[in-house]
Amino acid sequence: MANTPLWKSIAMSLTSEIANGHYKPGDRLPTEAELSRRFQVNRHTVRRALQDMNESGLVHSRRGAGVFVASTPTDYPLGRRVRFSQNIAQAGKSSWREILLLEKRAPNRAEAEALELAEGDLVHVAETLAMQQDTPIALSRHVFSAERFPDILQNIEATGSITQALKRSGVADYTRAHTRLTAKSASAAQATRLRIREGDPILRTTGVNIDSKNQPIEYGRTWFVGDRISLIVSPE
Amino acid sequence: MANTPLWKSIAMSLTSEIANGHYKPGDRLPTEAELSRRFQVNRHTVRRALQDMNESGLVHSRRGAGVFVASTPTDYPLGRRVRFSQNIAQAGKSSWREILLLEKRAPNRAEAEALELAEGDLVHVAETLAMQQDTPIALSRHVFSAERFPDILQNIEATGSITQALKRSGVADYTRAHTRLTAKSASAAQATRLRIREGDPILRTTGVNIDSKNQPIEYGRTWFVGDRISLIVSPE
Repeated sequence: MANTPLWKSIAMSLTSEIANGHYKPGDRLPTEAELSRRFQVNRHTVRRALQDMNESGLVHSRRGAGVFVASTPTDYPLGRRVRFSQNIAQAGKSSWREILLLEKRAPNRAEAEALELAEGDLVHVAETLAMQQDTPIALSRHVFSAERFPDILQNIEATGSITQALKRSGVADYTRAHTRLTAKSASAAQATRLRIREGDPILRTTGVNIDSKNQPIEYGRTWFVGDRISLIVSPE
Repeated sequence: MANTPLWKSIAMSLTSEIANGHYKPGDRLPTEAELSRRFQVNRHTVRRALQDMNESGLVHSRRGAGVFVASTPTDYPLGRRVRFSQNIAQAGKSSWREILLLEKRAPNRAEAEALELAEGDLVHVAETLAMQQDTPIALSRHVFSAERFPDILQNIEATGSITQALKRSGVADYTRAHTRLTAKSASAAQATRLRIREGDPILRTTGVNIDSKNQPIEYGRTWFVGDRISLIVSPE
């Protein structure tokens, strides 16, 4: 290891301590001062090691609070078929949806346009909290034409799954037409539901699912906790 | 308009005032109290109108500061070929890259893995600030094998374009293998460069571009200002 720079062997030591569970996700690492005493190096060297670990996504620093072990975000493929429970199962984790709200109401402009509704048409809306193991990872709002899908809300309630509910409502398969992504700050209400702090970064997706005849069937918005999910886009 | 709910006609009035330039992007709208006096309705009705406009992305509220007219984010397609200046030109806007840093250094682990480097290989790194008209929209870090691309930094400096620089370095075409997306908070340094506030939401993408022989040629990270860019993913 004669050629390994000092900062790198410090990063390797700390990385293996995280890997073997000595430091767990959410734990605060010792301070720069403590680490420089432990490794008998100056703080600049410790900082370089922590920077490298931060780049790799192993730790993140929170202004004024210290450096924390990052939880490994779950990979969430954003492909032609976006299926929540299947995506989380692929990552080897269990998932379910908690239903927060079911309602029938007038659509807003974006909803009416996306679903190609006529003036006066109403929508059925389900708001859900997507859970992975015991951790909330996303809030979602699913919007459907009330006319085309009169029973969708009961079906969502009965199955706890959008895919299963659509199947019961006669949609055997559906694909994602397009998704729009941006970053937002969590509102107070979102933060409470997602168990994060107000202002924490949120990845917001807005997507339209279409049936086999290219008819829009669902307009959906999802707010993912930035730390907990990585969306993966790959050409298919 | 007898059937139009009150809140909806208020939203329509304000929307048309934004559309005709009476309120411009970044302007603060009158307070809820002022709007309820103007429209002779209670604050609940005003709040419903503002919520609807917020849902449509026309305005955004900033805690304690008020409700502001949103700037329309530029659509940025994340397809098989991701080309910055072409993407922005498609949106009818001009763009350029400001070069912030050019360096040769040891790769971190993620860079070495993505570029399939051997132990001891170095990388050429360009950090750039992507500008749209006069507004910064993203910070990017572009990482290349120094061995395979000995002249890439000079070529980036000479052309101001990654695509053009790769062309000069012998890569006629390249495609995006995959992109990983998450939401982050802007650090103080990022906020200064991007002219936003520390902690503002940032959309971070990490992507690998490959050549026609499926060899990885560039590992890139980009930090987009959440308000200024919408990434668009559509199956091709």
